[in-house]
Amino acid sequence: MKKLSWIAENIPASPIRELVPFAEAAKKRGVKIYHLNIGDPDIESPSVMIEALKTWPHQLIPYANSQGESHLINSLLGYYGKLGFGKLASADLQITLGGSEGLLWTISSICEPGDEILTFEPFYTNYMSFALRAGAKLVPIETTIETGFHSPKASVIEKKITERTKAILVCNPSNPTGAVYPKVEMDMLLGIAKKHGLYIIADEVYREFAYDGHQPYSVLNYLTDYPEGIILVDSLSKRYSLCGARLGVIVSLNKKLMQAFLRYGQARLSAGSLDQYVAGQLDKVSDAYFQKLIKEYDRRRQVLVKGLRKIPGVVCSEPEGAFYIMAKLPVKDSKKFAQWLLTDFSDDNETVMVAPAAGFYATKGLGVDEVRIAYVLNIKALERAVVILARALEIYPKN
Amino acid sequence: MKKLSWIAENIPASPIRELVPFAEAAKKRGVKIYHLNIGDPDIESPSVMIEALKTWPHQLIPYANSQGESHLINSLLGYYGKLGFGKLASADLQITLGGSEGLLWTISSICEPGDEILTFEPFYTNYMSFALRAGAKLVPIETTIETGFHSPKASVIEKKITERTKAILVCNPSNPTGAVYPKVEMDMLLGIAKKHGLYIIADEVYREFAYDGHQPYSVLNYLTDYPEGIILVDSLSKRYSLCGARLGVIVSLNKKLMQAFLRYGQARLSAGSLDQYVAGQLDKVSDAYFQKLIKEYDRRRQVLVKGLRKIPGVVCSEPEGAFYIMAKLPVKDSKKFAQWLLTDFSDDNETVMVAPAAGFYATKGLGVDEVRIAYVLNIKALERAVVILARALEIYPKN
Repeated sequence: MKKLSWIAENIPASPIRELVPFAEAAKKRGVKIYHLNIGDPDIESPSVMIEALKTWPHQLIPYANSQGESHLINSLLGYYGKLGFGKLASADLQITLGGSEGLLWTISSICEPGDEILTFEPFYTNYMSFALRAGAKLVPIETTIETGFHSPKASVIEKKITERTKAILVCNPSNPTGAVYPKVEMDMLLGIAKKHGLYIIADEVYREFAYDGHQPYSVLNYLTDYPEGIILVDSLSKRYSLCGARLGVIVSLNKKLMQAFLRYGQARLSAGSLDQYVAGQLDKVSDAYFQKLIKEYDRRRQVLVKGLRKIPGVVCSEPEGAFYIMAKLPVKDSKKFAQWLLTDFSDDNETVMVAPAAGFYATKGLGVDEVRIAYVLNIKALERAVVILARALEIYPKN
Repeated sequence: MKKLSWIAENIPASPIRELVPFAEAAKKRGVKIYHLNIGDPDIESPSVMIEALKTWPHQLIPYANSQGESHLINSLLGYYGKLGFGKLASADLQITLGGSEGLLWTISSICEPGDEILTFEPFYTNYMSFALRAGAKLVPIETTIETGFHSPKASVIEKKITERTKAILVCNPSNPTGAVYPKVEMDMLLGIAKKHGLYIIADEVYREFAYDGHQPYSVLNYLTDYPEGIILVDSLSKRYSLCGARLGVIVSLNKKLMQAFLRYGQARLSAGSLDQYVAGQLDKVSDAYFQKLIKEYDRRRQVLVKGLRKIPGVVCSEPEGAFYIMAKLPVKDSKKFAQWLLTDFSDDNETVMVAPAAGFYATKGLGVDEVRIAYVLNIKALERAVVILARALEIYPKN
């Protein structure tokens, strides 16, 4: 039998999801699990979206347009218009099957095998899989908990640039660190990109999720200044609690790139028609929805940070945005600990599931005592989860 | 600015979809278009599926399991069991975002850049895009209208095998030719695959669509005989009129491969949750649904073949399965003709859209006077579409 490809052998398991079989086994034993491992919100979607399920106008589910359904595209144009980017046209948008597909296409469209993409480390773990599938290499720019995971100065970044560097990939607000990059940092990245002819790929999936007055500075602000170089990869998953609707959108003024994306889109026919019908209602979602949403996540954030900081040996920064926190735990190997939480521990028949952080780093050896915790549960559940985590750390065998 | 990748520059436009902008312009002019270009059925989905939209149990749309929702997987196990393949286990199935994703992952998992996959030509056009994205090469095995697009003898196929050949990809029943490969042909392919250690990738999306007593012989019959080598790529799109639900399934006993697919799946998080909820009702679909469905497609097939054969200069074989027909037209360049149908022609303010066939061939110069026609419209519409096509060919400028 011919062997499998290098990619099949090497595509990493998701640290967010690879422990799922252990979680399922625990559930079968009757253990309740608080899911802190995954950014799957519990907040209700805008009711107009869920109500739309009852008005699906077909007796079947036909293909959608390969670029995306015009109703959804127009709704998104309205959404970006409200944010101050009213000059976008339909042709500047391509609907994707989640932000995931958008990132995969983007990396594959600008990288030959062996090319490099700079990104702040720790980074969203699946960037690694997408890069690997394109044969590209993620080159980490180290950031640390001490500086709230913000960018080092330009010279540190520029030292990483080689002939193979094609892009800077930035997640703003950042999953997993919660860093929110303001204008000054984004201007610096733009300067570097322009100087070296690099693309900026911005993952702004958590755009609305910013707290304490922090404001992510969108790359859409640079469209006029650097039209060929800006690629926004966006998703509806988080802001409307539509993770399972698998809808993202790429925005760029780079015409050649957008034409390539349309051909990628044609090859996979379309994104989901039902999902687009549901999400196409977003033009009817009030600002109040977001205000309430962010207020709730902010409360959760405060509860979580306060709770974690009370646990002996736990170190965490205060996230400025998104809904994750990177926490150092007093354990040697957070992956073993995360598995142990599911296989060997429970408190009053309950336990927590966290994402081991090593998979969020490209640099070997980093993050092995860290976990990513998502604050996507209600306050009561979150408080209970912190108590469980504290008890677990208390009794976790030190060796 | 750094340039785009070779893939972005070379990924082909879909011949099925690239004329869509011309179609949209025609619609804006008030022209009605009969869509013969795309296999997007008009038959109602099983009502239990559409009804399920009203019982969605959440107020949001959360992620699904990366392998696929267990309800859908169990329903599919039941479906395969009914076909006589009752020994499959959950771990042998991986839900994908349409058959498209399944094909893309499969090719990427068995091919290094430069590797080759044999497939009967003409073939489903998007195989080319999926191969290109994996850096693999489709090596065509020519079939012709004269033999109903059936396989040449084994020695012809074996001559195409090189050190880089990794798999034989077969679509059974075939899109676009309608050929249905029986046991004897499939046994031959199995023999070749086993002899050379090749994978067999079978696209059996049109399994139920077979007429006149023809029966596609499923590769699932070979699971015991060749467990590592058989990869079934299936889809729910056609048989339940769920094209826009973006759900496929890969079936294989190759454990290493299935583990790789799960990691591919984790990287893109999940397939659509709503779609899986809807499709998970398939265990409630009666055999009568398929019987009625196939009877209707068979009637359409007969109407189309009869109609096409009456048009002077048109040559077509009688498809044994699927819902496409490859037809030679009395034109020099079917792409120009297909575009002209949308831009310059109408009959009583109506026209037809067809898929130019050159994109279904890897061999340059083949298929340039052919089109693929999908018989996914009701009889009345189909009859009218044939009349329109005949009139168009009558007045189409000969040069």
